[in-house]
Formats: sequence, structure tokens, C-alpha cells
Amino acid sequence: MRFSVERIDIGTETPTALLHRRDADELGANPLDRIVIRAEDETVTGIVEVTEKLVDQGVLGATERLAHLEGKVDVSLAPRSGSVSCIRNKLDDKEWEDDEIRRLVKDIDRNMLNDIELGAYVSAIYANGLSMDETLSLTEHMTEVGDTLEWNDGVVADKHSIGGVAGNRVTPVIVPIIAAAGVKIPKTSSRAITSPAGTADTLEVFCDVEFSKRRIQEIVEETNGCMVWGGSVDLSPVDDRIIRAEHPLSIDPEGQVIASVLSKKKSAGSTHLVLDIPYGEGSKVQDLSDAREMARDFKRVSDHIGIRTECTITRGGSPVGRGIGPVLEARDVLSVLKGDGPEDLRIKSVRLSEILLEICGVEASAERLLDSGEALDKFREIVEAQNGDPDVSPDDLLPGNRTFEFKADKSGYVTHIDNELISGVARRAGAPHDEEAGIYLERKVGDDVSRGDLLFTVYADKQEKIDEARDFAEARRPVRVGDRGESLVERV
Amino acid sequence: MRFSVERIDIGTETPTALLHRRDADELGANPLDRIVIRAEDETVTGIVEVTEKLVDQGVLGATERLAHLEGKVDVSLAPRSGSVSCIRNKLDDKEWEDDEIRRLVKDIDRNMLNDIELGAYVSAIYANGLSMDETLSLTEHMTEVGDTLEWNDGVVADKHSIGGVAGNRVTPVIVPIIAAAGVKIPKTSSRAITSPAGTADTLEVFCDVEFSKRRIQEIVEETNGCMVWGGSVDLSPVDDRIIRAEHPLSIDPEGQVIASVLSKKKSAGSTHLVLDIPYGEGSKVQDLSDAREMARDFKRVSDHIGIRTECTITRGGSPVGRGIGPVLEARDVLSVLKGDGPEDLRIKSVRLSEILLEICGVEASAERLLDSGEALDKFREIVEAQNGDPDVSPDDLLPGNRTFEFKADKSGYVTHIDNELISGVARRAGAPHDEEAGIYLERKVGDDVSRGDLLFTVYADKQEKIDEARDFAEARRPVRVGDRGESLVERV
Repeated sequence: MRFSVERIDIGTETPTALLHRRDADELGANPLDRIVIRAEDETVTGIVEVTEKLVDQGVLGATERLAHLEGKVDVSLAPRSGSVSCIRNKLDDKEWEDDEIRRLVKDIDRNMLNDIELGAYVSAIYANGLSMDETLSLTEHMTEVGDTLEWNDGVVADKHSIGGVAGNRVTPVIVPIIAAAGVKIPKTSSRAITSPAGTADTLEVFCDVEFSKRRIQEIVEETNGCMVWGGSVDLSPVDDRIIRAEHPLSIDPEGQVIASVLSKKKSAGSTHLVLDIPYGEGSKVQDLSDAREMARDFKRVSDHIGIRTECTITRGGSPVGRGIGPVLEARDVLSVLKGDGPEDLRIKSVRLSEILLEICGVEASAERLLDSGEALDKFREIVEAQNGDPDVSPDDLLPGNRTFEFKADKSGYVTHIDNELISGVARRAGAPHDEEAGIYLERKVGDDVSRGDLLFTVYADKQEKIDEARDFAEARRPVRVGDRGESLVERV
Repeated sequence: MRFSVERIDIGTETPTALLHRRDADELGANPLDRIVIRAEDETVTGIVEVTEKLVDQGVLGATERLAHLEGKVDVSLAPRSGSVSCIRNKLDDKEWEDDEIRRLVKDIDRNMLNDIELGAYVSAIYANGLSMDETLSLTEHMTEVGDTLEWNDGVVADKHSIGGVAGNRVTPVIVPIIAAAGVKIPKTSSRAITSPAGTADTLEVFCDVEFSKRRIQEIVEETNGCMVWGGSVDLSPVDDRIIRAEHPLSIDPEGQVIASVLSKKKSAGSTHLVLDIPYGEGSKVQDLSDAREMARDFKRVSDHIGIRTECTITRGGSPVGRGIGPVLEARDVLSVLKGDGPEDLRIKSVRLSEILLEICGVEASAERLLDSGEALDKFREIVEAQNGDPDVSPDDLLPGNRTFEFKADKSGYVTHIDNELISGVARRAGAPHDEEAGIYLERKVGDDVSRGDLLFTVYADKQEKIDEARDFAEARRPVRVGDRGESLVERV
């Protein structure tokens, strides 16, 4: 059937094509069915939604991903995607062949799977897992699609954390240390999805984080490092779509995590990687043996694709640093670079940097680079290259002026600060959208407190946000205070 | 946050709310997140999609399912649905508690699950199955939502087929037989999703099939029967949404099928049911032992909810009747009612009617009701009550005037007619959208043929549809001819 194309501005991730109900009936297309759209110089796939008013008969409504189409197009019902039977195979607990994985990655890359199918894809992997062979295949095929960065150096360093720990803003400390040691480190980071700040959100307090691929190359050639938003370069369009499907289900199956992380690192041209796996109560990995197994799997896949990876298993049951939310984390980072700041953030950054320098074969002391101010100078250099103010000082980084103080309701010591709950408080205060919103932890795990002592301060721009954060904090109490020597946590 | 509502006509099944990207950021809402929308007199849930142009900041674009909202609304991010953790539990192969199933059904009923989550729901059930207890719970909770029909009679008959067989239009023969025997049979049927005709599509050749619940009650009080489209009454909104998610994945997990079918029958007020389970090559159930197991499970759940069910296990490896597509099936049906027509369609209709009459405790002969013309009179009576022409004759039912004849390429006998492939040919000819399109089978399984004999004729309204159907038929050859005594099917 022949259609005229009209643009419909809807920001769906999938290439939704709106058809009038009568046209869809005539095509034999149900909502979510795939259609083949033949334009003059290209053929693309669309996913059908049906309307009775938004487009007339004979018109194809092209949403964001199809917005480049114009004029007249020929449309036919697409054959069922072969990926669907691959997904069913995994639901049946069959091991995927290499060419099934190739097909799945290709179809996700071309945006051929609708949301029902993407939900089934991540569910199938979560329910029945991926073998080492499948993980290797998936990593390879995910590396084959998307943009790549290329470097002339034999050694290109990188760092990654599997996440789940509040604060923990080690990247903006590590990148300048490594770059100051003379090693290239082109670091891309993500924005928050459910946390109060992603590394990219925190960096945006200092400078721009969105650059063209070309400009990223220039910044790294100039300074040895960069700290940019991963969305600037389309290193892994497949991963973006998979994350979008994992998010509503709160699932994050290990084989998929390994393939996603390592394919992205490979596409970024990284050769040496330190990969942090925090574990502990309330973080993504619950116990040490799971963390060790994950580290082993990461290393095996890394070896296979030619990245020298060292994993760090770190305590991740409570936040690292004191600030949570973009501005408050930025202040922690700058303080550490100036030789001050939260001790745990400093030590973790130094430790990861030492290991990364060691595997890169560079004789340099991370601690000395930090203490001498060379890392700070490098940080200012990168910030300037990314259009920021190189002379920024911690005093410039002020949180919101509405506050709420959360106090201890009994005496004892801090036994636990819950990552998820403290993040929930910071999100309600407005982070990361309001960059000045967040939390400052006045007490950390192990500190003694007396009843009425300040445990943390919440900052926000608006009183209503403070109220929301307070209600949540008071109901859920993210900081636990216990008696020394007491092992009882709760009676149920 | 406060928004003005504007209607956006998009026919999505889910209650999609379009927000400007900046508003979504400020709310902390990602695409597919749920929001709580508080209007003056009600609170509903929406699912977020993001746009930069289709709505301005401060405006909430309300699609079909939210189109009743007006004026100003208050919007906040909804807490994560508890259903998501239930779905994760099933992916983890844990057995669901009754209250988890209640929550899931309630959330699906209120349209609270986005497509990713619905895909995960059907995947989880497919991958890890439902126990008998879970199936019982699911059936009960699905019965609790949606419309119901109520009757004063102690005996209300019903019939269902799990489908997958082309042709097989027994319902319009069975309903008049049962109604003529004095038993109420308020039958609702579906339209085609992937087949060349659903029972409702075929019935529409004779008369209207969409009526209000009130009018359905009147028709049944008048005539003892009705043959209407299930979508007329909202007996199982939950089932409609689940089918929508199962369709792209081509999965149909048994426990879900049982719960969907029986909850709908219960809501329709049925007390006695004959349930047909066709099995064989290319149909939904592959072998006899699977069919027996399914029958046992159907009966156990039926007993539990108080429906007296008898299952028929029938041969389903090839089409039943000769016509495929709305008009051609309608002609078969009318011919059988007039004492003529395809023998297999007649015998199957009689057999199922006999069993249904028997379990209803009615002393009447299905065969006699058919041969005496009483069933035909009743059929005409129901057709008239549903605004059709009671005097319709098979000669009025003419297929499309473009044809293509598919002939035997060797001599032998017909060993197999593939349901799926023959349906594929009929769909390409235009069925069910073009009601005159379809296939007439000139030879059936077991018939002798000589090379060059006509196997089936394809009918369509348009030459291009004939061409499409011919290409498919010639490539896939849906009718298999073999030598008698030969067991070899294919060399691979």
C-alpha cells in the first residue's frame, strides 16, 4: 500500500508508525506489528500504532525515529522477526547459537523489536541466564554495532563501576590522576536513571559534557583525558535500548551487564580497564562470592576481546563520600583533588588509580600525583577544555538554600546508611534535575552519635521538595543507629 | 506538578501520557514510568512518553485511554508497581501467592503495566509455568474483573475451541442446534488476529455481531442463542491485554489459556461447556498426551469454579470444512445447516452438539435437529434478531471474482494440508479484511489426485492480492501429495 508521510512528534524510542485503523486493517497489521516501509532511497522497518484521528487514511504518521522519511512510501506487513523465535528459545532454556545472538543484536540495533519483545528478551536472559560462550558472542556482536573511538596509543586506560552505591564519585578524581601520569583515559559516563546523580550529571556542574566525537578526540589529544556523557557518542545503541527495557523491571542480568560494559569499552578503544564491583547489603551484588564470580567472568570475557582488566571488589553497602546530588558530589570531588575532602572517597580513588597505573605498566604514584597538585592541575585543564571554569573552588559549589536536618533518635553508633533509601531522599529533594539539591552526610558508618545529633542535611531549591524529602526520610529512616555490641537489627 | 490536559488522538492500549521533555525531567520521570494523575473527581495512572514538540511545557497530552480527563490535573511520579516484583518472582521460578496474582490481575485491569512489563509477565509464565493452584487463583481473580452476563436459567450452555485449525467454523452450526433444543447458549466469539477469519468475522457475513450487553440479553431471551463478537461486552479486559502481549511473541502458555478461557465463560454466566482441543502437526497442541493433560487441567479448574466442562480432543492437523475466509466459511456453514456441505464440518458440529446436550441433561438428538431443518430455522431466527437477512442462501455468498487455481504437481493422494500455510495464502488473498477473499479446498486429506488436478482455488477482489497469494502458495506448497504406502515426507 502507498502512503504519504507526515511527521508526528512523539519521542518514542521505537520507530512507531501511526496508521489509520482502516489502513491497518487492510494491511492486516495489528498494533505492535512490524511494517516494511520502502522510500525512494532506503527501506526501513516501522512498528504499527493505530489511530482514528491523528492521521487520515492514506497517511503514515512518522514519529521521531522515522522523521527522516518524506513524500510517498510503499508499505507492506513485515515477516515475523527471526529474533522472536530466538527469544522463545531462551525462554525454553535453550543455549543460543552464535548466529542467533548476531541476529538479536542486529535487530535490536535496527530498532526492530517492539517493547513487548524487548521485555521478553531481558526476561529470558534474566530467567535462564547466559553461558560463558553466549556472553562472549553477545559481547563480540555488540562491539560490531555503533560508533567507535580510535587512538594511536598502545595503552588506553578506562575505569568502570557496576554502580549501586550513592555518592562514590571517584571518576573525576581518577581521570586526572591517570591523565597526569601520561596515560590516555577517554572516559564516558552516564546520567542518572534512578539515582540522584550520574557521573555525567556531577561533571556538568563543572563543565559541558556533550561533545561531538571529533571534539572528544581533540580534547583527549590535548589533555590525555576527557570526562564526557556517553550519549555524546553512540558507542552502544543496543545497550541503550536494553537498559530501557531493564529499567522498568529492575533487572540487570549478569551476562548482559558484562557484554554491555565490555563491548562499550572495546568500542571506546580502551585497552586497560579497572572495573569496580561494590558489594554488600542493598547494593547490586549481595555477597563476596557473587562478586568474585562476577569478577572472574568479567576477566574471562575481557581476555577474549583483548582488554586487560583488573577487577576491584569494594565495600558497597553504604555511600562513599559525603555529598549526594550533583553539586554536593562536585564539592567532594574538588575537595579531594585539593588534598582535603572525605577520606573514603580519597582512598578509593587512589586505590583504583594505583591498580590502573600498575596494569598499564606505568611507574607513577597515584598518591603523589594527588598530593603534589598535579592531578588538580590536570582536572582544571580538562575542565577548561570542556568549556568550564578552570578556577572553580569548593566555595562556588553551593547547595540549595532550603534545608532539613535529620537527627538521631537515639544514641549509639551509625551501623548502616542505606544506599537506596538515601538516594530516595535525594531524588525527592530534586536531584539530579535540580543540581543544587541533595544530601550532605554529617555522620558516616562507624561514627558515634548522641540522641539529637545531626545525621545528614537535605538541601533543595523549593520548600515543597524539602517537605517531600522530609516525609520520605522520616518514614523510611535511611541511617540506622545501633548500640555497640548489639547484633539485633529488627524484630519482625 | 500541575498540568493542563490536551487530548492527543493515539490509539494506544496503554494510558500513555505525553509530557514535554523538561517537565518529565523535573518530575524525574523516564519514558514508560508511571505517573499518578489527580483530576477533580478521580485519580488515574498514566504511562509516560516524552516529546519536545507535540505538547508544550505544562501540558499533559492525554491519549485514548486518558481522553476523559479535562482541565487541570496534579501529576506526581507513581511508586514502582508491586506487580513488577511479582513478575520478577516468577522469572526466579518462585510460586506465586494468591495475593500476588490478585495484584497482577488488578494492575493489568487498571492498565498499570507498560509493554515491557506485559512482555515480561507473559514471558515469565511461559518460561516457568503455572501450577494448578496458581491457575485456579488466576482464573478466580480474572473472573472478578470485567463485565458479567446473568441469566435466570439453571443451565446455560457454551462452546469453546482453543483454535489453530483453518476453517473449522462449527460454532454457527452448534449454536442453532443447542438453541433449537431449548437450551440457552449466549455465544461470544473473537475476530481474527493472525488467522484468515475468526468466528465473528464469518458471522458478520450474515448479520451484525456488535451489540450492547442489554441487546445481547434481549436476543438470547427471544431466541435462546446469540452469536456475537466478544468485544461487544467487556467480559475480560485483562485477557485482551494479555493476548496483545502474547501475540508478538507467538506464545500461549497453558495456565494462562485455561484462566483466560474459563474466567470469560464464568463471566458470561455459562454453566455447561464443551471445550474442543484440536491436536496434530502444525496445530497448537502437538500430540495426544499433551491434549489429554490440557483437558484434565481444564476440567479441574472448571470444577473448581463451578462449570461442568467436557473436553473433546479432535484431529486438528488439517483444516475442517472446505472454505477458508469469511464468505467461503459462511457458505460452508449455511450448506451444513441445509443438510449439505462438507462432511467433516457437519460431523464435528454434530458430535460437539451431542456432547453438549448430554452434559446439559437434555434429551434431544443433534442430528435430528439438523436434519429436520429446526437448526436452520433457529439460525435464521438468530440472524434476523441480529439484523441480518433470514432468507440468505448459499448462492448469495459469492467469493471474490479474481481467482487462482493451485494444481497437483504429481499424482498420488493428499497426505497433509498445512493449517498455517493455507492460512498464510488466504491472508495474502486479503482475508479477513476483504470478506470475499479466501480459499476453497477442492481436495481434502486422503483424496486421490492425478498430476494437474485442482487442489484449491484462491479467491480475491484484487489482482495484486491474487499475485501475492500465488507467490506464497507456489513457494510454500501448503497441500502435500504423496504416494500411497510411502512414508518418506522429505529428504533434508
